[in-house]
Amino acid sequence: MPEPPVTVDPADWVCPLPLRSTRRIVLGHGGGGVLSEELINNLFLPAFGTASETSRDSALLDVGASRIALTTDSYVVQPLFFPGGNIGHLAVNGTINDLACSGAQPLALTAGFILEEGLELDVLGIIAATMGRAAVDAGTSIVTGDTKVVGKGGADQLFINTAGVGVVPAGVTIGPDRARPGDVIIVSGPIGEHGVAIMSVREGIDFGTVVTTDSAPLHRLVAAMLAASAADGDPGAVHTLRDPTRGGLLAAVVEIARAAAVGIELDEAAIPVPETVASACSFLGLDPLQVANEGKMVAFVDPDHSEAVLAAMRSLPEGADAAVIGRAVAAHPGMAVARTPFGTTRVVERELGEQLPRIC
Amino acid sequence: MPEPPVTVDPADWVCPLPLRSTRRIVLGHGGGGVLSEELINNLFLPAFGTASETSRDSALLDVGASRIALTTDSYVVQPLFFPGGNIGHLAVNGTINDLACSGAQPLALTAGFILEEGLELDVLGIIAATMGRAAVDAGTSIVTGDTKVVGKGGADQLFINTAGVGVVPAGVTIGPDRARPGDVIIVSGPIGEHGVAIMSVREGIDFGTVVTTDSAPLHRLVAAMLAASAADGDPGAVHTLRDPTRGGLLAAVVEIARAAAVGIELDEAAIPVPETVASACSFLGLDPLQVANEGKMVAFVDPDHSEAVLAAMRSLPEGADAAVIGRAVAAHPGMAVARTPFGTTRVVERELGEQLPRIC
Repeated sequence: MPEPPVTVDPADWVCPLPLRSTRRIVLGHGGGGVLSEELINNLFLPAFGTASETSRDSALLDVGASRIALTTDSYVVQPLFFPGGNIGHLAVNGTINDLACSGAQPLALTAGFILEEGLELDVLGIIAATMGRAAVDAGTSIVTGDTKVVGKGGADQLFINTAGVGVVPAGVTIGPDRARPGDVIIVSGPIGEHGVAIMSVREGIDFGTVVTTDSAPLHRLVAAMLAASAADGDPGAVHTLRDPTRGGLLAAVVEIARAAAVGIELDEAAIPVPETVASACSFLGLDPLQVANEGKMVAFVDPDHSEAVLAAMRSLPEGADAAVIGRAVAAHPGMAVARTPFGTTRVVERELGEQLPRIC
Repeated sequence: MPEPPVTVDPADWVCPLPLRSTRRIVLGHGGGGVLSEELINNLFLPAFGTASETSRDSALLDVGASRIALTTDSYVVQPLFFPGGNIGHLAVNGTINDLACSGAQPLALTAGFILEEGLELDVLGIIAATMGRAAVDAGTSIVTGDTKVVGKGGADQLFINTAGVGVVPAGVTIGPDRARPGDVIIVSGPIGEHGVAIMSVREGIDFGTVVTTDSAPLHRLVAAMLAASAADGDPGAVHTLRDPTRGGLLAAVVEIARAAAVGIELDEAAIPVPETVASACSFLGLDPLQVANEGKMVAFVDPDHSEAVLAAMRSLPEGADAAVIGRAVAAHPGMAVARTPFGTTRVVERELGEQLPRIC
């Protein structure tokens, strides 16, 4: 007789200390902030026995002589359709961007759908067609999938999971722990648009100008950055890449500061925040530096080659407005500070949970 | 300025004909039967532009000189805990088995969680620990993950998506379209246990003996089958593998019959159905051949080597009760018939939707 599957005895599982205060899942556990990190570090990593690589968007694996990146993301954004896009754009571009953060070019994507009984086929059809077109536009494809249906009320319309496999070019070793003091911090364009696009429809607020999502695939931008750094004499000059989604720019840089044990100095006046985003955030009481982006990249680059990398970014539409926004320093490792337009400095910290639930 | 993301105009999307009768998602669209196939063939495949490989559990990709299999599955089973296991076992073993159906050995898994606000951390902790242990037991690991939280009522407790990457040994070309007339059909053990285990707790029915889930990883069984066929002189003697989950044994063989354009003759008396499963199914009005399994494999094997493969299967606990249950024939391609214990034959067909929603 086959043995029964191994089961974990509930008596053997003890809720780890930092999580005990709630004992239940709260929205903030999915927000990409401090509570998310607590859940990952204290519950998932011990369970999975995986090394503590909390701040990496994808895992690296050896296949023969090649190296692949593997990533997964679920998308639960509400509403499903918003200015400039729908959940299908995020599901494809978001996963491509997680691969790109390891320097990988996308090889293939998977798509897992959880559908609520009663969902209109028109809605599913348009979203699936969007995903297919987004994949083709990015030069990749959705090669396998799965569909589950739950009863009315068992899910909120439609959730999508995409996993992605990418190929990491030989010699590329980009990672959150590779940032080092002196690195120039570059952001690939204006921030805050995706979050404001969602909030404007969710709250039904008219800000005068429509802010559209910035959802875009960034693997070509990354390829151009790597080519520029190699041509400039150092194929390893791009140390760290991160797409600032949930938790925004601040969560991205704080996580890198902690992973690499460097300090970070941001120049607030240099951070590109569109006027429309600034005024919407002001109205809603949000910090634009903590609003989600879906088509932006933060890069930590060796100062000797940052000009070449910046020029390469600006040569592509998705990096046309790239800007230097700060630098990594040896002081205050693990902490980020911002120089305000008034010349003062302030410590910046991630949210405990999230400003905007279900933003992606 | 970067271009806005490509959006599919709702006016450009027309609900394809076979789906028009409902216009909405029904539970059966997730059941693995005829409605699932209609949704895949008429909505997802046209959207994704992928070749019509509806009956393959994983996609094959070239990476350098190696070949990898890639698969994804979401798990929405209710209840989360059931005799012999929990959703975490299914999430790990189910995805390993989808890889094994391509002859692949698992390299790594991803885990994407969608959690309902208010879920007890104890529940999540036990399920995550189960997943980690199941992965270790199978000799693989969960290397990356993602967690989203939706508000109370936005999901039903907890959904898990796992994607898996496996390495396909050189020369292995197992696939649903490779079955051919003459092939011996083998099932790796008794069927129907997982579905009955779920139904017994869901319906609160006491069948006297507790039926436990058969959830188990089958990649070692597959490796032993491939080794036996190679040792017997034909490394390609195992033509087709399929784990009969949603839709059960019948859905698996009908899909293979269609993919390979062969006929199938099952010998009903030879199909191992435990007495407990048979009586529970009789009570519930279910067909045991259509009840989900989570640790069984159906194999189509060249008749010259089927004895060697069967012996290898029986040498492992997970294949100890393997049995020959029929054969592939040239007659009635795409159709499966069963010889009843009374000597008559009947055509067997999949369910339109599913007998048991949310079984995995």
